[in-house]
Amino acid sequence: MQTKFARRITTASRSFTRTILDLTAQNKIISFAGGLPDAALFPKERIAFHAKALLESDDARLFQYSNASGVDALKNEIAKQYASANPKEIMLTNGSQQGLDLVCKTFLDEKDCIVVEDPSYLAALGLFHMYNATIKAVPLHANGVDITALEKLFHEAKPKFFYTIPIFQNPTGYSYSLENRHEVVRLAKQYHVILLEDSPYEALRYDGKPSISFADLLPELTIALGTFSKTLAPDFRIGWMKAPSEVISALTLSKESTDLQNSKFFQHVCARMMQNGEIAEHVKTLIAHYRPKRNAMVNALKHSFKESIEFVIPEGGMFIWVDFKACDDSMKLFDKAIEKGVAFVPGSVFFADKRISSYGRLNYTNSSLEQIEEGVKALHTAYVELQSAL
Amino acid sequence: MQTKFARRITTASRSFTRTILDLTAQNKIISFAGGLPDAALFPKERIAFHAKALLESDDARLFQYSNASGVDALKNEIAKQYASANPKEIMLTNGSQQGLDLVCKTFLDEKDCIVVEDPSYLAALGLFHMYNATIKAVPLHANGVDITALEKLFHEAKPKFFYTIPIFQNPTGYSYSLENRHEVVRLAKQYHVILLEDSPYEALRYDGKPSISFADLLPELTIALGTFSKTLAPDFRIGWMKAPSEVISALTLSKESTDLQNSKFFQHVCARMMQNGEIAEHVKTLIAHYRPKRNAMVNALKHSFKESIEFVIPEGGMFIWVDFKACDDSMKLFDKAIEKGVAFVPGSVFFADKRISSYGRLNYTNSSLEQIEEGVKALHTAYVELQSAL
Repeated sequence: MQTKFARRITTASRSFTRTILDLTAQNKIISFAGGLPDAALFPKERIAFHAKALLESDDARLFQYSNASGVDALKNEIAKQYASANPKEIMLTNGSQQGLDLVCKTFLDEKDCIVVEDPSYLAALGLFHMYNATIKAVPLHANGVDITALEKLFHEAKPKFFYTIPIFQNPTGYSYSLENRHEVVRLAKQYHVILLEDSPYEALRYDGKPSISFADLLPELTIALGTFSKTLAPDFRIGWMKAPSEVISALTLSKESTDLQNSKFFQHVCARMMQNGEIAEHVKTLIAHYRPKRNAMVNALKHSFKESIEFVIPEGGMFIWVDFKACDDSMKLFDKAIEKGVAFVPGSVFFADKRISSYGRLNYTNSSLEQIEEGVKALHTAYVELQSAL
Repeated sequence: MQTKFARRITTASRSFTRTILDLTAQNKIISFAGGLPDAALFPKERIAFHAKALLESDDARLFQYSNASGVDALKNEIAKQYASANPKEIMLTNGSQQGLDLVCKTFLDEKDCIVVEDPSYLAALGLFHMYNATIKAVPLHANGVDITALEKLFHEAKPKFFYTIPIFQNPTGYSYSLENRHEVVRLAKQYHVILLEDSPYEALRYDGKPSISFADLLPELTIALGTFSKTLAPDFRIGWMKAPSEVISALTLSKESTDLQNSKFFQHVCARMMQNGEIAEHVKTLIAHYRPKRNAMVNALKHSFKESIEFVIPEGGMFIWVDFKACDDSMKLFDKAIEKGVAFVPGSVFFADKRISSYGRLNYTNSSLEQIEEGVKALHTAYVELQSAL
C-alpha cells in the first residue's frame, strides 16, 4: 500500500525526538532530551479522589456520546483565566497538539504561507509540513522575535498565521519582552495576520513577573492554545483553544469530522480540581520542585563548562538552550554524549531548514538533582573529548 | 478571521445529524435519529472496578506521556480477534472516526479519488469532503454493492480506497453476502484498490451467522477500523485500526503529528475487561436488549404502515432504512414528524450527492419499547397527514 501514500507522508521523517525517547528508554542513559514532566509529582491522590467520586455518581450519561467542544464546567474555569473571555470562546482538544492540527485543518490550503520562530517546537514544524504549508522562519532572540524580519515576512509572504510560543519557549526557554509583544501586536493588526499563541509552560514561572498574553492583548486576532499536560498530567490529554466564538464554531466543525469528540471523564476530574483551586495549589508544588532543578542545571553548566558555552537562564518552563560554541555541529556532540551516558536534543531539528547548529536543548524537569549533576559532568567530558579529537 | 478559512471549511456545512441531536435534546421528542447506544446498559460497575484498581496501583508512569500507538495489552487482545494478526498490525485511535481521519491524512492528496457506498456514513462523507477528495459512489443493495458499477469505478477512476461498511451498514443495516465479499476482494486485487473496512456494529448480531471480514479475506490490502463505542462505551474514545505493519507505521507518524497520543487510562481498563472476557459477556447483554427493540420497531412499522413502506429487516446493528414510498422527499416527512413529536434522519444526507430521497434512517437502540411503539405511531400519523395534504 505504501505506493499510495500521500505526498505529505512520503516526505515526512520519523520524529528524531521519538527516536531519542526510544533510545533513552532502552538504555541506562541520563536523559536531558524529551520534555516530560516529573511523573513522581502527579497529584495522584487528588485525581483518584475525584475520579472515584465520578465513578460512583449516578450520572447515566457519564460514558455516553456528548458534544465536540467539551465539558461546560471546564470551559467556564478556563475562560476565567483570561482578562475577558466567555465559554463560547473556549473549546477542549486532545492535548494542545490537536489544537495545532485543527487550526491547520481549518485555515490552511495547500502552499499557504505561515511564519514560525527560528528555532521552534519540533512537533509543530512536523505538523505544518504535513499540511504542505510554505514555512517561513523569523529569528528568535532572548527578548523576542526580530521585528524587522517579522515585518518583512508579514509584508512579502502574507502568512495566514504566525506561530508563536512567547513564554519560556520550546526549545530556547526565551520569553518575549512586553515591548516586543506590543510590536508583534502592531504588525499583526497592520498586516491582518493571526497570532497562533502556544503557551504550554506559562504557569511554570520560577522568577520574574507574569506577562500579558497575545490572547489578552489582541483577542480578535489571536488563537491561544493551552494545556494541562505540564500542570496536571499528560495522559489526561486535555488541551484547549481560546479564540473568537465564530472561529471556535469552525474549529468545532473540524473537530467533529476529525474524531467526533474527546473523552469527557478526565475533563470532569479537571473541572473539579480547578473549581477547588487544586491545580493552582499543585502548580506551586511543581515550581518548588522544578526551580531547584533549573538552578542545579544552570550551576552545573557554569561550573563544568565555564566560558566555553553560552546560554540564557530561563525564568521558567522546562528547557535550557545551550550554544556549544566549540562544536559547530551538536549532532556530533550528541553521538559522543550518548557514549558517555547522557542525552540531549541537537539544535538542528528545531530549525525549519534543519541547518547544522552548535546549539542543543537540555531538559531539567524529568531528572533528579543527582542526575543533573552527573549528566552535565558526562556532557562536559564528551565536549572536551570531541574537541581534542578534532 | 473567517476570511482566512481554508476552502474545505468554507464549503462544509454543519452536520445535519448534530442539528437533530440538538433539537431532540431540547424538546420532548422521541428520537429515532442519532446512533447512540443505550446509556442504561453501560457496564458501569465493571468499569468502576477496573478504573479504581488502576487509580490505586503504584504505577508512577500511569499519567505520563507514552507511545502513539496505544497500550500493548489492548493491542494484543484486539489482534486475537482476527484470523491472523500480530500487535504490530494494530494501533489505537481516538474513536474509529479518528482512524478515518488518519487514513485520509496518510493516503489522500488533493483531488484523489475514493469510492463510497451510496448511501454511506454521514460523518465519513463529511470528512472525505474536508480532504478535498473526489468522491464516487457505488449503489448499495440489500446483499452488497453493485459489482458491475464497482468494477467500472475501479477501472475508470482509479480510487485510492473503497470505503466499505460491510456488516449492518450505516444507514441501511444491510450486510454483504459472502459471494459479494469475494467479488469485492477479486476487484480490489485486480485493480489494486485498498479496502477501508469500517465495522462498528459487527458484534451486535441478532440473527444469522458471523461473516468473514475483508481484514481476514484480504489482509494485505485492507485497513480495518473497529471501536468499543458500541460494545462498551462511546466516552472511552477507543477505536483501532488493523493494517499491514508498514502501513501502521505511517499511520502512527500521522497520529504523532495530529495529537501525539491518546489517553491510555481507559485503554488499560478496556484491556483488563477483554482479558477477563467481560466485554464478550457484556455484548450478550446488549444483544438481549437490542434484539427485542429491533423486533418491536419492525413489528410496529409493519403494523402501522402495512404495505405503504418498504424495508429490509436488519440482522444486527442499530438502524432500519425505510423507503417511505408515498413521500418523494423524506425531508418533508421529517418536518411533519417533528410536529408529531418524533425524529428520524432523512435519507438525503447519507448520499454523496445529497439528492432528494424517499428514504429515512430509524435508530432503535436508544429508545424504550414503549417509545418505539409510540414513536412509530406518531410517524405514521405524520405520513398519513402529509399524503392527504398533497
